[in-house]
Amino acid sequence: MSVGKVVLALDGMGGDHAPDVVVDGADIARERYPGSSFLLFGDPARLKPLVDRRKGLAQVLEIVPAADAVTADDKPSFALRRRRQSSMWLAVEAAAQGRADTVVSAGNTGALLAISMVAMRMLPGAHRPALASFMPTSRGETVMLDLGANLECDADNLTQFAVMGSVFAQVLLGLSEPKVGLLNVGSEELKGHEELRQAAEWLRREGSPVSFHGFVEGNDIGTGIVDVVVTDGFTGNVTLKAIEGTAKLLMGRTGLVREAFRTSTFAKIGYLFAAGAWVKLSKRVDPRRYNGGVFLGLDGICVKSHGGTDALGFAYALGVAVDMVRYEYKSKLVEGLAKLHELTATAETPALQTGGGGA
Amino acid sequence: MSVGKVVLALDGMGGDHAPDVVVDGADIARERYPGSSFLLFGDPARLKPLVDRRKGLAQVLEIVPAADAVTADDKPSFALRRRRQSSMWLAVEAAAQGRADTVVSAGNTGALLAISMVAMRMLPGAHRPALASFMPTSRGETVMLDLGANLECDADNLTQFAVMGSVFAQVLLGLSEPKVGLLNVGSEELKGHEELRQAAEWLRREGSPVSFHGFVEGNDIGTGIVDVVVTDGFTGNVTLKAIEGTAKLLMGRTGLVREAFRTSTFAKIGYLFAAGAWVKLSKRVDPRRYNGGVFLGLDGICVKSHGGTDALGFAYALGVAVDMVRYEYKSKLVEGLAKLHELTATAETPALQTGGGGA
Repeated sequence: MSVGKVVLALDGMGGDHAPDVVVDGADIARERYPGSSFLLFGDPARLKPLVDRRKGLAQVLEIVPAADAVTADDKPSFALRRRRQSSMWLAVEAAAQGRADTVVSAGNTGALLAISMVAMRMLPGAHRPALASFMPTSRGETVMLDLGANLECDADNLTQFAVMGSVFAQVLLGLSEPKVGLLNVGSEELKGHEELRQAAEWLRREGSPVSFHGFVEGNDIGTGIVDVVVTDGFTGNVTLKAIEGTAKLLMGRTGLVREAFRTSTFAKIGYLFAAGAWVKLSKRVDPRRYNGGVFLGLDGICVKSHGGTDALGFAYALGVAVDMVRYEYKSKLVEGLAKLHELTATAETPALQTGGGGA
Repeated sequence: MSVGKVVLALDGMGGDHAPDVVVDGADIARERYPGSSFLLFGDPARLKPLVDRRKGLAQVLEIVPAADAVTADDKPSFALRRRRQSSMWLAVEAAAQGRADTVVSAGNTGALLAISMVAMRMLPGAHRPALASFMPTSRGETVMLDLGANLECDADNLTQFAVMGSVFAQVLLGLSEPKVGLLNVGSEELKGHEELRQAAEWLRREGSPVSFHGFVEGNDIGTGIVDVVVTDGFTGNVTLKAIEGTAKLLMGRTGLVREAFRTSTFAKIGYLFAAGAWVKLSKRVDPRRYNGGVFLGLDGICVKSHGGTDALGFAYALGVAVDMVRYEYKSKLVEGLAKLHELTATAETPALQTGGGGA
């Protein structure tokens, strides 16, 4: 597939506002990413009228019938066994079999992970997939993973996640040597779980495929002191949601800042003057701009959009998928993981308590 | 000790700005909490001039000489063995032996925890101490624990923390039936680690000493949907710092909101009008107001102030200590833990995978 031409498989029935948001998002992405084309999986009776309403979209989009759909309540195991004819399964399969370069779904996260693992399998050297996304910091953007694919992680997992995240930051943020930090309760070498200390020891070795900064703490995420924050899926999920919750508490429509602007006439006048600056700031921290979680480590590119996003947010998720294809995420990751394997397979010290010799 | 009269043992040499902040904080607390008196441990040559400068303070404060001090870099094990004559050790000992009702230190957290555990020991039914604090939410305040005393927690620990946090919220926030939530990656019953599911099963039982809401997610912390958020020390530490970091990123002196107000002349004028509202909001989320972490579960009341706080922040920590003594935290917790023990010791189902029969 030549650079510039990217075929995206879309789960037309996944997400709270499907299929409308999926079709409208594809229409925005069509203009933003010229050369893109789409395979849209789902119920043709519902999809065709939406596509036809958008001038020009039908030229770059093909509807592929899918008789079934994964629901938000489906357990991953159920979706895996019983939703073989769903728009999600068929879209993932298209990307796994090379008919598309990537798949994007706003549907059930657990089901998407399970189906992708079965249909795409893992890249050599990657044991488990990690869910990654990026978030705003005072310096720009930081990649964080795992955001919930693996509740418990050993040193091998964390080390591989570091490589996955580093390559993702290279591709998505255009950084040549992203700085990687391991999330911990302190920045000293002796802090934290044994798994974390082992992972840090590996990443510090000469020849490490990542530029390792060391341990970082929760408050370092927002400062952007590192470009990639690595943690286990339990901590990552809770932390990401806590950050989103705090931003909403302060900056949301009914948040404390807006509330403060309503407390007096003076404040209300102040808000009128400052409204332009406020809108600009709101845009900068707009969660839609950070939409598009990615399952890294799979032998395929699978992007998960927020279920509740709108067309603009969905288009951002499509942009993540396009960039990962164009800038050859997969082949770069394979290289990085091979380097990691060399690193952890050699010079293993018997004193180390955790098992496992890398990939 | 009659209600109203509270004797506080103070580590005069602990914290970034000791001893000044400790003495000034005591002076503020003396006015705020009439009936309080202080045993101030440390170097008399440094303490006496500071105390004498504050009119009236010497009448309610006694300086107790301590030849040594715990440093910020001391490892807990070192402080435990080698700092027996430090202001921290002697202050904790005074509270443990009943010469004071409570001890407050802004010094080394790990050392304070280790020394308190040895000098005070645990309350019956409490296996491990948990570090708790409270934080602002859109509805008021929420207690969160453990914030870093225990990196890994089993179901017994989490269940006991739930009781400790519930009693703390009763005493500090004046709630008769605080709602308690367990932090998890989803609110469904089947989500998360086995340890979490076991703890939830115990807390849901009839006769539970806490009003159990169920699982909560990271974004629920800021909404105040529960009054107490329970988690392991690793997740709690990372999450608390991530929340503080996000608030600083948005609201701090060099944060994004202030930056937005500097982007244009209009915005600057807007800021002038809104300055009053801004100051009020800043006060509401002022970290000094939420100063005072507490090690719960000890047979004694030990409050940890932030090391970098000022006199006002230190006085808030003293207020937490005073309230815990006045409202009889310890005896209420003993009752709660006894109830918990009955609950987990009886009706144990053999199908449960985690071991342990409670206290």
